[in-house]
Amino acid sequence: MPIERIAILGTGLIGASVGLALRSHGFAGTIKGWDPSTAELSVAEASGAIHAAAPDPIQLARESQLILLSGPVFTMLEWLDRLAPVLQSGQLITDVGSVKSALCEHARARYNLVHTAGFLAGHPMAGKEVSGAANADAHLFNGAAWLFTETPESCAMHPASRALADEWRAWPAKFGCRVIDIDPARHDVLCAWVSHLPQYLSTALSALLEDEFPEKDEMLAIGGRALREMTRLGASPYLMWRDVAHTNTEAVAASLLALEQRLTHLRENLKMPELREEFEKANRFRSAMAPPKK
Amino acid sequence: MPIERIAILGTGLIGASVGLALRSHGFAGTIKGWDPSTAELSVAEASGAIHAAAPDPIQLARESQLILLSGPVFTMLEWLDRLAPVLQSGQLITDVGSVKSALCEHARARYNLVHTAGFLAGHPMAGKEVSGAANADAHLFNGAAWLFTETPESCAMHPASRALADEWRAWPAKFGCRVIDIDPARHDVLCAWVSHLPQYLSTALSALLEDEFPEKDEMLAIGGRALREMTRLGASPYLMWRDVAHTNTEAVAASLLALEQRLTHLRENLKMPELREEFEKANRFRSAMAPPKK
Repeated sequence: MPIERIAILGTGLIGASVGLALRSHGFAGTIKGWDPSTAELSVAEASGAIHAAAPDPIQLARESQLILLSGPVFTMLEWLDRLAPVLQSGQLITDVGSVKSALCEHARARYNLVHTAGFLAGHPMAGKEVSGAANADAHLFNGAAWLFTETPESCAMHPASRALADEWRAWPAKFGCRVIDIDPARHDVLCAWVSHLPQYLSTALSALLEDEFPEKDEMLAIGGRALREMTRLGASPYLMWRDVAHTNTEAVAASLLALEQRLTHLRENLKMPELREEFEKANRFRSAMAPPKK
Repeated sequence: MPIERIAILGTGLIGASVGLALRSHGFAGTIKGWDPSTAELSVAEASGAIHAAAPDPIQLARESQLILLSGPVFTMLEWLDRLAPVLQSGQLITDVGSVKSALCEHARARYNLVHTAGFLAGHPMAGKEVSGAANADAHLFNGAAWLFTETPESCAMHPASRALADEWRAWPAKFGCRVIDIDPARHDVLCAWVSHLPQYLSTALSALLEDEFPEKDEMLAIGGRALREMTRLGASPYLMWRDVAHTNTEAVAASLLALEQRLTHLRENLKMPELREEFEKANRFRSAMAPPKK
């Protein structure tokens, strides 16, 4: 029995993009949505990301087979709390959050038990520096990785929930994703390096330039692609990244410290042979990377 | 009298792109080239970036009205030395180097005098992380800034050289550039922030990831646009940036130190209200930036 009723709680950029991706890739069921912002919800409905806006998220979750949580990590932790007593076996919660250990830990005593709903944590490695349903895109996930962090608990969820989980796991591949299974703790460490560090770095660089150049006209007239690229994520919203900072603190702090030390090393060796080593290592790193999509 | 004979000394990425841009925007004269690499020179000739490859750069320079220097800064400093006794008033040297004070300083006793050739320093704010004539592009400069750093000396160059300089100054606008005049010292400080810092930062991040992930398959499979963008410049060649590090050391070191301190501040405040300030400043910086070209 294919999934017939999906609820998207949080119809911002990612939530609405999932809705659009589902519908443009042939999902035949009904997608209803809810968002704390009625404006976001209206945009998501008008764009076709959801078939209908629901007035009551609890009632919506109760009536749905699959509940997708999208939004800041703390918000999703709250939903896990609120929905646990409302849902039951044969239902499934999944999510698209940037941090996985905190969510899996929080779900442990509340989901994947005999009489409870199932919880399968997921994370599409795609996004934009701008938020909101208006920026949602049915093809946002094409070519990206979609990570699932199964746990001993999720592997033991009720068979009726498991059937939904297995069906859900097939959707990202239809969206054009590489589907990858990974341990939650390993996920958080890897994402600290490849996603969270680039974000906080771009924020720090952008904030520094904001302070250095109160008058920006000359600097912005001169700056080219390098400046635009390295500061693009400076536009990212605080609330989303506050929650990542709070829930993946150790790994993020470790990667930031390592980068600080690396920059110090490079600065102290600007006129020394060590600079060549840094460029050679950087060149090797990029050689291992597949050419970016145009 | 329009310029009839241009020499490009250094037919790599930027030199060959200038040749292609000139020809695709209606330059009616002859462009000859020379490069220390005969392979680069052949590619430039085959691509049409130059009409002909010259066997002897000194003879080529002697016969040309305008000599464009392209390559690492130290290489251009050497050309300023070698060409000074060979050229004369009525000829013009210009360049496309990333650092301007060192070049203008070096030119002071050698050019822009009564019987010497003129020297007008220039810098297109465009490039790629890959080098070589094979990556040259007639439209590389479209939408970029092209900076000129006139000095009291360049303003006093021989009138016959000045006529060439004025004519040359009109070409970048035809390429689609914003032509901006700026003081050489101010140029170097601004470029440290908007170009050199992003480069060394991307190199440091790439080298760090190279060391952290000797086995890169899992990390690269997961990484998305943020990782690709923030490390793109990690592919940049060492020699070009060694010379920038040597000739703009103070400004580059100051910008690196400021970023190190900023990252430390952010790391120490991952769970504090100061993180919000950083994101708000970064958001303001990006709001001031024009939307990137698609």
